[in-house]
Amino acid sequence: MNLDFSKLDFTKLNGLVTAVIQDHATGRVLMVGFMNEEAFHKTVETGYATFFSRSRNKLWLKGESSGHKLVVKNISTDCDLDALLIQVEALGPGVCHEGYQSCFFRKLEGGEWTESEPRAYDPAAVYPGKPGSKS
Amino acid sequence: MNLDFSKLDFTKLNGLVTAVIQDHATGRVLMVGFMNEEAFHKTVETGYATFFSRSRNKLWLKGESSGHKLVVKNISTDCDLDALLIQVEALGPGVCHEGYQSCFFRKLEGGEWTESEPRAYDPAAVYPGKPGSKS
Repeated sequence: MNLDFSKLDFTKLNGLVTAVIQDHATGRVLMVGFMNEEAFHKTVETGYATFFSRSRNKLWLKGESSGHKLVVKNISTDCDLDALLIQVEALGPGVCHEGYQSCFFRKLEGGEWTESEPRAYDPAAVYPGKPGSKS
Repeated sequence: MNLDFSKLDFTKLNGLVTAVIQDHATGRVLMVGFMNEEAFHKTVETGYATFFSRSRNKLWLKGESSGHKLVVKNISTDCDLDALLIQVEALGPGVCHEGYQSCFFRKLEGGEWTESEPRAYDPAAVYPGKPGSKS
């Protein structure tokens, strides 16, 4: 596929664009990640969301080890062409490496961040021996 | 209100966190902006979404001139504490300064970005004499 990459603006975040991941069926926002051109290309070509990990400085196929991949259903970009909205079907019980359905599991209540839902799975069983791992 | 700012991580984007704006009733993602600590504080204190404009290098009360303010309904943060999900009631017909209900009005179809919906209002009538203005 001849993708018209030239239109996306990767300059504002040093080679990255923001990628908002939303459940295509429920509308729930599941996570926010970042993509460079290569990650975006992989996402479109493979149909699975692939990010650029700022902490590990490399491409990151979400679900590579956990199996919790994100199947792309729709991709939109915004007026400034520097953000993506990617609607997905999330494989597995939760997107968050801490065991929650969504990474946005803390709500602001009375000035404090409060966990607003139970875990959807046990991260220790999915990421054995990899504390803090995200895949 | 004694906000526990210390928990948010503003270090990864040079003093900013990503803020995803979602319609609280429909679930539609309306825009992505950035907030520094002051913008986040203003957002919580006033109940209207306030961003930090990277292009203008100053705080930006969304809707300041257009009246298309974003009334905050819920605020969540993610596992890494470096992104916000803000559910809002959007005042006015559209959030996007180009006249669309959402800034995400372009879908990827056949490798090209295609406008996927009509404008919700005429931006020239809302932002007279201010081409490219965003407020």
